[in-house]
Amino acid sequence: MFNPSVQHWLDLAGILAFAISGALLAVRKNLDVFGIVVLAEVTGLGGGVIRDVLIGDVPPAALTDLGYLLTPLVATVLVFFLHPQVERINRAVMVFDAAGLGLFCVTGTVKAHAYGLDLLPSIVMGLVTAAGGGVLRDVLANEVPSLLRWDREIYAVPAIVGATTVALLIHTGRLNAVTGALAAGLAFALRLLALRYNWRAPRAWRRRSGTADHGGAGA
Amino acid sequence: MFNPSVQHWLDLAGILAFAISGALLAVRKNLDVFGIVVLAEVTGLGGGVIRDVLIGDVPPAALTDLGYLLTPLVATVLVFFLHPQVERINRAVMVFDAAGLGLFCVTGTVKAHAYGLDLLPSIVMGLVTAAGGGVLRDVLANEVPSLLRWDREIYAVPAIVGATTVALLIHTGRLNAVTGALAAGLAFALRLLALRYNWRAPRAWRRRSGTADHGGAGA
Amino acid sequence: MFNPSVQHWLDLAGILAFAISGALLAVRKNLDVFGIVVLAEVTGLGGGVIRDVLIGDVPPAALTDLGYLLTPLVATVLVFFLHPQVERINRAVMVFDAAGLGLFCVTGTVKAHAYGLDLLPSIVMGLVTAAGGGVLRDVLANEVPSLLRWDREIYAVPAIVGATTVALLIHTGRLNAVTGALAAGLAFALRLLALRYNWRAPRAWRRRSGTADHGGAGA
Repeated sequence: MFNPSVQHWLDLAGILAFAISGALLAVRKNLDVFGIVVLAEVTGLGGGVIRDVLIGDVPPAALTDLGYLLTPLVATVLVFFLHPQVERINRAVMVFDAAGLGLFCVTGTVKAHAYGLDLLPSIVMGLVTAAGGGVLRDVLANEVPSLLRWDREIYAVPAIVGATTVALLIHTGRLNAVTGALAAGLAFALRLLALRYNWRAPRAWRRRSGTADHGGAGA
Repeated sequence: MFNPSVQHWLDLAGILAFAISGALLAVRKNLDVFGIVVLAEVTGLGGGVIRDVLIGDVPPAALTDLGYLLTPLVATVLVFFLHPQVERINRAVMVFDAAGLGLFCVTGTVKAHAYGLDLLPSIVMGLVTAAGGGVLRDVLANEVPSLLRWDREIYAVPAIVGATTVALLIHTGRLNAVTGALAAGLAFALRLLALRYNWRAPRAWRRRSGTADHGGAGA
Repeated sequence: MFNPSVQHWLDLAGILAFAISGALLAVRKNLDVFGIVVLAEVTGLGGGVIRDVLIGDVPPAALTDLGYLLTPLVATVLVFFLHPQVERINRAVMVFDAAGLGLFCVTGTVKAHAYGLDLLPSIVMGLVTAAGGGVLRDVLANEVPSLLRWDREIYAVPAIVGATTVALLIHTGRLNAVTGALAAGLAFALRLLALRYNWRAPRAWRRRSGTADHGGAGA
């Protein structure tokens, strides 16, 4: 879809952003330096690895492209020495993470479809690519995945919108570098808006009516 | 083993029951609507996906048959709007869940054997098919898997009995729709009896003698 | 690399040691007998299964070699009846576990390379083989993986050193039964020294300078 070299650099930027979020959580949880490395690798690469195992592309790209494996180490070094500064620019990290989200929901959907999946399962694989690493990160850190929590800004919706847009582009034969980038940009923008305006997803019906909609007790 | 169309509807019924248990846990944990969807999908499809990845059938059936992917969404809608009512008929949900347990321990064992595994590993895959989704559900909800807990009614024993019965039927060349259904019914009945009479599995030797056997402090 | 029969017995010994650590944690967490079996199986076999799925060797060896599947049951029986005694000889178990660590980081690296991975990803697979089962054990027991925790003796470093040594031996064409055994022995010795002298890995920079290095509040 994109120029392979451009695609590769975009992938690495997305992996770096995801890995930084994993490394920062490791520091907050007081883990040691190997804990930081493991959470950085798992967060950066986990979503793509789950997708690759499920669609049958093994060994996954994360194990065949050295850049993928090494990028989370860069995140580890950055966070290890500079974590107070990185925390302070947490908003900037969130922007990178949103860019990774936008990129990976698009490339994940495209790759799954290229491996023969129908459009709906391909959308699911797009969501898995974008959000799977973060879920593994939270499970390893012994927390309820942020993706699932009511008191966090929506993460799944932007990814689903981006992946669905790509699926429609594939279906109508209009997917190319420009439209693909627009789909990624759409997911990116939605995530930024969700962060800016604290968009949250509703909880189940009675729970929603029973408590205040924003600012309740949390999970 | 069964008529393919009958098999398919039975699969969907089992997935629906499992997905409802996932969605209900998501509501109890105060997750948002995407948390409900994710737990419903993971609980309904997780066991089969793990089995398919391990026996080498990728992409797994959950990603190639739209009915599998859509059924947990039905569970989500049901639970989202009707969760107080669904909680009230929780016993009915447990019966469906027990039916799913019976069905999946049988079909999981049969499929694993059809993919070339020996009888004992096939039994393990039957247990994984029946119980894997529930384990993933509990891990994502940040709880000790109910399957492993001393203070929950036995879940593994009915699945192991059902899977072992099927393995013996395969070994003696007597597996057919009737005997397979009987094996599933056996697992189903055992699980219902366990729920009715609060059958629990023992803990390790000294722990068992040290505390009251039923109604202790829990995990 | 080794004589196949020797290799097989070494594998079983390593699996037994890992499985005992899983079964002991299950007893400590007050799980029932099936919880003990599941944690024993997952801890003993999990690392190798993850590696096999990622490198594309499915069904994994754990499902095709009955000895692999049965060994954790031996650990379960031992721990079920003798857990106070096994706890008392916990140091001995730690020595076996260290032996498993040394063995599996070597065999995992060799197998991954034999399946076509480059040296660096092979090292990662060596670490996954040695440490993956323990991570799954802790996730199922709803704890932060001991591998990642600051207040536990280092586990990753010995495995990485052993795996890297093997990778260098492969690279220089000097891998044989003797040098492979030496690499495993090196990892084994490092882990024993870490246990003996409470070697811990540093946490992130400011955290490290902010609190006492040993004996702080823990994770």
